[in-house]
Amino acid sequence: MVGAPVTFWCEFSSPYGYVGAEQIGGIAAQAGRPLVWRPFLLGGVFKVTGARPLIEMAEPKGSYFRRDFLRTAGFYGLSITMPQRFPFAAIAATRAAYWVEATAPERMGEVVLALYRACYRDGRAIGEAATVLDVVAEAGFERAAVEAGIAEAAIKQRAIAAGEEALAAGVFGSPFVTVDGERFWGSDRLDQVRKWLVEGPW
Amino acid sequence: MVGAPVTFWCEFSSPYGYVGAEQIGGIAAQAGRPLVWRPFLLGGVFKVTGARPLIEMAEPKGSYFRRDFLRTAGFYGLSITMPQRFPFAAIAATRAAYWVEATAPERMGEVVLALYRACYRDGRAIGEAATVLDVVAEAGFERAAVEAGIAEAAIKQRAIAAGEEALAAGVFGSPFVTVDGERFWGSDRLDQVRKWLVEGPW
Repeated sequence: MVGAPVTFWCEFSSPYGYVGAEQIGGIAAQAGRPLVWRPFLLGGVFKVTGARPLIEMAEPKGSYFRRDFLRTAGFYGLSITMPQRFPFAAIAATRAAYWVEATAPERMGEVVLALYRACYRDGRAIGEAATVLDVVAEAGFERAAVEAGIAEAAIKQRAIAAGEEALAAGVFGSPFVTVDGERFWGSDRLDQVRKWLVEGPW
Repeated sequence: MVGAPVTFWCEFSSPYGYVGAEQIGGIAAQAGRPLVWRPFLLGGVFKVTGARPLIEMAEPKGSYFRRDFLRTAGFYGLSITMPQRFPFAAIAATRAAYWVEATAPERMGEVVLALYRACYRDGRAIGEAATVLDVVAEAGFERAAVEAGIAEAAIKQRAIAAGEEALAAGVFGSPFVTVDGERFWGSDRLDQVRKWLVEGPW
């Protein structure tokens, strides 16, 4: 019996999203659960919830998060290169992810991870559409097809709809995991996600 | 050589503070570090940072935290009974902790933990001064002496000063650990605190 899917919600501009994206595949696989990737634009959610990007918070919070991004990544064995422009608009990256889902759904997670790694591991500016096209092309898709794809009205609408679905699912940050009617916010809740999936409720 | 002290900042009304208070003693002891307990009134800090109690946040956050308090406690093997009045004013509890520090400093941590357990394990209303006096008396202090102590101007001032020290240390939530010039926010950062103390920086 295959269990209910694990949905991983993430915003490409979120460093904690990257930290989570590097782990969620292994966690879902270990539990034998299908994994659904749901990148979304956190800015649209913030407009509704009234929240603000962590790094734009006044002191003492802004400096805390700048440090914690790096330290938390390092805690999980990852090394983060913060992008020069941060936070950035992840519109092209989000659209590209949904274009991949529409084109080759089984490869969506791989492309989401490739975009995250391009940004946070390699320091590439995935806030720019040209970089997004490069990264998706390097994953084996035809660059011109990706470029045309992310300009399609249906793909643009799909990226917007993901944010609406996030709000409807009670998601308000990145990363966020929903599974079995439970919500888990943050890369620091992945230990609880693992326990939930492997041992069941407590 | 004794290492630099670990300072544990906490607000008695914070359930995550309770989750952290149950663990920090063992973590500091394992690392051979002195532990300094610094309960403070988060409300005063929130006035400066503009933050709000988690449970008073609009949906979808309020319901998330009400669930996460219990789930996170359970993850660490604790069972939380949420107080009927929550959040509550922890003025008497904070003053009592500093009266104990002034009177029998080596017993402060034990009394902080006793107050937290009275609240979150046993469901007692430590927002009320009478309950605080009961709990500290049960720990072996003379009830009348505690009652007189928390009315002293110096103790009241000490409780206020703790909030000012928290802000000066860059503390903006509960629990919070400061050590070796690092700041760790949240019960979900205690794994990083443990690694930091045992293995050193990464």
